[in-house]
Amino acid sequence: MPGLIKRREQEIADEPGINSIFSDRISDVPRSFIREILKVAVDPSVISFAGGLPNRELFPVAEIKQAAIRVLEENGQEALQYSRTEGYQELRQYISQSYLDKHNLEIPVENILITNGSQQGLDLLGKVLLNKEDDIVIEEPGYLGAIQAFMVYRATFNPVPVSEEGMDIGRLEAIMSTKAPKLIYSVPNFSNPSGISYSADNRRAVADLLRDSHTLLIEDDPYGDLRFAGQEKPSFKRLIPDNTVLLGSFSKTVAPSFRLGWIVAPDRIMEKLVIPKQAADLHTNNFAQHVIYRYIKDNDFEEHIKKITVVYGSQRNAMIESIRQYFPGEIKHTNPEGGMFLWVTLPEQMSSMKLFERAIQDKVAFVPGHPFYIDRKEVNTLRLNYSCVDAETIKIGIQRLGQAIREQLAA
Amino acid sequence: MPGLIKRREQEIADEPGINSIFSDRISDVPRSFIREILKVAVDPSVISFAGGLPNRELFPVAEIKQAAIRVLEENGQEALQYSRTEGYQELRQYISQSYLDKHNLEIPVENILITNGSQQGLDLLGKVLLNKEDDIVIEEPGYLGAIQAFMVYRATFNPVPVSEEGMDIGRLEAIMSTKAPKLIYSVPNFSNPSGISYSADNRRAVADLLRDSHTLLIEDDPYGDLRFAGQEKPSFKRLIPDNTVLLGSFSKTVAPSFRLGWIVAPDRIMEKLVIPKQAADLHTNNFAQHVIYRYIKDNDFEEHIKKITVVYGSQRNAMIESIRQYFPGEIKHTNPEGGMFLWVTLPEQMSSMKLFERAIQDKVAFVPGHPFYIDRKEVNTLRLNYSCVDAETIKIGIQRLGQAIREQLAA
Repeated sequence: MPGLIKRREQEIADEPGINSIFSDRISDVPRSFIREILKVAVDPSVISFAGGLPNRELFPVAEIKQAAIRVLEENGQEALQYSRTEGYQELRQYISQSYLDKHNLEIPVENILITNGSQQGLDLLGKVLLNKEDDIVIEEPGYLGAIQAFMVYRATFNPVPVSEEGMDIGRLEAIMSTKAPKLIYSVPNFSNPSGISYSADNRRAVADLLRDSHTLLIEDDPYGDLRFAGQEKPSFKRLIPDNTVLLGSFSKTVAPSFRLGWIVAPDRIMEKLVIPKQAADLHTNNFAQHVIYRYIKDNDFEEHIKKITVVYGSQRNAMIESIRQYFPGEIKHTNPEGGMFLWVTLPEQMSSMKLFERAIQDKVAFVPGHPFYIDRKEVNTLRLNYSCVDAETIKIGIQRLGQAIREQLAA
Repeated sequence: MPGLIKRREQEIADEPGINSIFSDRISDVPRSFIREILKVAVDPSVISFAGGLPNRELFPVAEIKQAAIRVLEENGQEALQYSRTEGYQELRQYISQSYLDKHNLEIPVENILITNGSQQGLDLLGKVLLNKEDDIVIEEPGYLGAIQAFMVYRATFNPVPVSEEGMDIGRLEAIMSTKAPKLIYSVPNFSNPSGISYSADNRRAVADLLRDSHTLLIEDDPYGDLRFAGQEKPSFKRLIPDNTVLLGSFSKTVAPSFRLGWIVAPDRIMEKLVIPKQAADLHTNNFAQHVIYRYIKDNDFEEHIKKITVVYGSQRNAMIESIRQYFPGEIKHTNPEGGMFLWVTLPEQMSSMKLFERAIQDKVAFVPGHPFYIDRKEVNTLRLNYSCVDAETIKIGIQRLGQAIREQLAA
């Protein structure tokens, strides 16, 4: 049991961005929140949809072991030595080829920079692009880690709401017409926290607004490969290649521990990124780059990704079925076609924070929505994670949550 | 041969800081320099003292393999999952214990942050401490990667010369009395590029100047464990603990590829570092932290370090003996007690850049001294690396270099 407790405590504490949000951004929110959520975490009788991590049961542990052995036996000294700032050449070539094979996108190897996860991509882009009080656009609700990365550079945030269709084009147009935002941050596929994907029309409308501007669109795509329903939509990298910086990651498809992601940037941005990357840490862990490359080459990587999407897809289905069965009819939810999260909208006057306090008494947890907005303290939205909970447990947890909602509605 | 060529080209291109220095800082220096040094690198008949890397022959490849296997077999899912921003707890505890056992320094685990090499420590410290045009002090000649890291934050550099005794106290005092530098950057043990260590008296004098100031001293110590002669001197962390941020690294004692280093910082600094670390990349590669920890625990790490110092020490001896034998008597050199580099001072009017051009014709290479200064283009100093060249080859190379110097003197 102590092992389980430690692990669950860890899993909440470790979610990207969650520490700092708790320590800094929601300091006005009842202080009990952190303590409550940690209390929840250590209680194994609580069903937690509060997590934000990929399912560790699906990590290819044995295959990674074989890859590590092979790298060290065949190429150990090189894999342990200092390496190029831009990244391991073979890995960059694989990524380039993979964009061509899977998405028919031509990305020259020279435009790919290997980073410590997508998160470092955000930090480096903030570093080379942002001055204090520069306007930036961020989707709302949006990814905590991006909010945090750009806050370090003291940007002025202009949130644009996202719905099941994508970005609110009217709002974006209004911002673009009065300001010249340096960048727009978007997760167009299966966003964290909302699970939303932008429609093809929405992408085209966003692209049209940007095409002749100096605004850069950051297309953060850590979940894009984890599609279990629907059809792929055109990437911004295809629609407006000169205005788009595309971020990718192996965190959700192989393992997050390796901190391996990449930036695809136009020449003029790429040449600005290499020096700060070198100043930041010389290069990304070279052994890790060799191991991931070896793993991908020696295994059926696409089959592995399919295995993940089958599990996540069936858990997402279990969650939606349970929501339909156990939640009051007026509760809205997104219908993600991939990724790890689903977004719930409660009736307008209902506080997800108050619901959270009620729900943990009933041994079920989630993340209330307010940290995913720039400046909100009480919202009627919440995030549910389905990647780490099996279908049977999801059903029980959603039933408990439905009961808590009903009680809250009746109060 | 193509393997060797690729490897030697790589070894020059990959030295920390060397890319950017070449591309940016010495753009006024003959452009042929980069081409020349790369030409040198691909010519296997050239003896190169221009490298800046640890000797790959000494990497514990087999032991790292065993450690990786054990981590993945015993704890694979955890080692592959997201982890804490501060670092792997067991590794932080080892580092804390190691300071106590080896240096009698009490460092609480809470004051240790695991970083992507010391380089990330420099970047994070720049990020939390420096505003544009803030005064900072940097030893000169000084580490390229530090110059680069602080340049990103547009600091104003106040160089203080170092001699075989350590920092020029008069110069430091003059700066401290007219400016309030945010930080002082120092490598008091076996510096890159000079191989110099500060004497105990010099350390005390520097400490006395800082004790009642708000200036922070960054004690960068990547080479401290690689001592092959002399006695350990008191760490700044002991002399002025509240003013010192100590940086450590496994790059020179285990393997640089892992990008594993750490910051030891006082509470007030530590609490400012965690959020930017999280914003930068969430956490350092967790698998790598597990593997290094396992490697240290399952092997005689001190014995391994001793093995490195024996090799480096004997190569340093070979280099100094050859210098005495083959260089004209007026040439000065440092006598490093550890680390990987030795610093040569030519007669005052002699240009090390011109010597470089001459020397490569004689098939021997080194790094001319100017990139290690803040604003110099012609200097009479140069850096020799002895970690990657065996004693026999060192002798031949130094003989060639001595001949080139004599010819240059006669010209």
